Amino acid sequence: MEKFININGKIVGEDEAKISVFDRGFLFGDSIYDVTYSNSRSFVFLDEHLDRLWNSAKLIGMDMQVSREEIITRLMETAKAANLDEAYARIIVTRGESDLNIGTADFKQNVVIFIKPNIQYAPELYERGLHLSLVSRFRNDKRSLDPNAKSGNYLNNILALQEAKQSGADDAIMANQAGEVTEGTTFNVWIVKDGKVMTPHPTSGLLKGITRAKVMDLCIANNFNFEERAISTQELIDADEIFITSATKGIMPVYKLNAKIYAETSAQRPVTEALRKCYIELIEKHINSGVHSY
Amino acid sequence: MEKFININGKIVGEDEAKISVFDRGFLFGDSIYDVTYSNSRSFVFLDEHLDRLWNSAKLIGMDMQVSREEIITRLMETAKAANLDEAYARIIVTRGESDLNIGTADFKQNVVIFIKPNIQYAPELYERGLHLSLVSRFRNDKRSLDPNAKSGNYLNNILALQEAKQSGADDAIMANQAGEVTEGTTFNVWIVKDGKVMTPHPTSGLLKGITRAKVMDLCIANNFNFEERAISTQELIDADEIFITSATKGIMPVYKLNAKIYAETSAQRPVTEALRKCYIELIEKHINSGVHSY
Repeated sequence: MEKFININGKIVGEDEAKISVFDRGFLFGDSIYDVTYSNSRSFVFLDEHLDRLWNSAKLIGMDMQVSREEIITRLMETAKAANLDEAYARIIVTRGESDLNIGTADFKQNVVIFIKPNIQYAPELYERGLHLSLVSRFRNDKRSLDPNAKSGNYLNNILALQEAKQSGADDAIMANQAGEVTEGTTFNVWIVKDGKVMTPHPTSGLLKGITRAKVMDLCIANNFNFEERAISTQELIDADEIFITSATKGIMPVYKLNAKIYAETSAQRPVTEALRKCYIELIEKHINSGVHSY
Repeated sequence: MEKFININGKIVGEDEAKISVFDRGFLFGDSIYDVTYSNSRSFVFLDEHLDRLWNSAKLIGMDMQVSREEIITRLMETAKAANLDEAYARIIVTRGESDLNIGTADFKQNVVIFIKPNIQYAPELYERGLHLSLVSRFRNDKRSLDPNAKSGNYLNNILALQEAKQSGADDAIMANQAGEVTEGTTFNVWIVKDGKVMTPHPTSGLLKGITRAKVMDLCIANNFNFEERAISTQELIDADEIFITSATKGIMPVYKLNAKIYAETSAQRPVTEALRKCYIELIEKHINSGVHSY
């Protein structure tokens, strides 16, 4: 059995893992989630992921009913049951089960934790990189649905990914209506221009990624020329180097955006590579500190 | 047993109605739905609702795997099993079960049909009307997620409703970023000004409701002074009469928007009442024609 699912404290296999069709996650995407992973049986930046889970709940007006300690306990128990050294973990908390109307109340929330083997990205994706597409679909505006709420409403991203795939790319970057770069479907976006590292400002409407925050800290600690600011789609296109960040991917380079090739080997993107080395060291250090190990 | 659920052709009760946690409706809101109801054992405007279900599928890049005839058969069988003369029906089609990544493919879709007693709105809501709030949250922009796709992504509407409830109102009307009225959380919006009936144009970003289309036809057939055009939030506030339309509510008046009272009795809103009479006649005629009866 490769996948273990913890539903409200009970660990079950993939085939038994079912939820009521009255769950509001199923009916309305009325749920929040976060994703993390373990390396050598230690969950990476779990505190930060749990902080964000609580923030997502706040952004959709939901008071968490499960304690932080209880989520950690269930996560550890499920990872242990799965006996995986390197696990992918997805924690979903739904607003609970209700009638078919959208009104909210204190329903009994459902907590579902998925544990499966961590995704192993091909070394090629770090050496050559990704082919991305700057798609026509705009990212959800933060005044409609704030991208900082990691929620069960993922159609915006799914449709952006479909558009990218149709154009032959691996994945998508979305802009906002002001022509500013926001983020990818499941990752933050970075550019390097004339030696300067830049990532879009949250005012453009994006998720303040945990890996993004760590890489920002690394830029400052290691004296990279760095700025967090609104980046136009033209600046993205004109960049010297492009890379992305996400918890599961870490720092992953982009070799091609739409039809334009940026760099096809790691040697051709010196700034991305220098940052990537810093990030790998940071993760090793974090894991060796043994926080949240099982 | 009050609620009957048909999951992929099998009718079950509320407690047995479960779906895999790997269903993309649960994971990502990656599903479409439509709602209709029956009156005297006839489903009202079912053809139109099924046309729209197929259109929603198209808008999220999903080829329907179940036939129209099969959905009608299952709907009728479930309504018969529930033995309800007046049923509420919700049809959900999800993109199916997949791994935890958002990429789409031809997964085996899940079709879930809910049947329960139709909602009986208090006569007071038709005589006095609703108290609505024009909320600060913008409707999803159609270039991010088209409101014409009735999907499992409902957080935008849920958060608008929360905001309205917090201000003491019954429900919410949302504007777009250009300051134009779009729609309510689950209904279309209409105004009457100097005897003229108006409803926002689809370019403002809204669902082209089935009841909305029927009422537009009635306006034209009955020589009401009618226009479908962009309506500013100020025009909404300055209206003489406000009403809403939805399949389950029909035409329902609004007596109060934010702190302003418009009309507290049906006699004070002559145009709304005249249209409401036409609509009630239309529904009676449709039901008596016996289409899609069980």
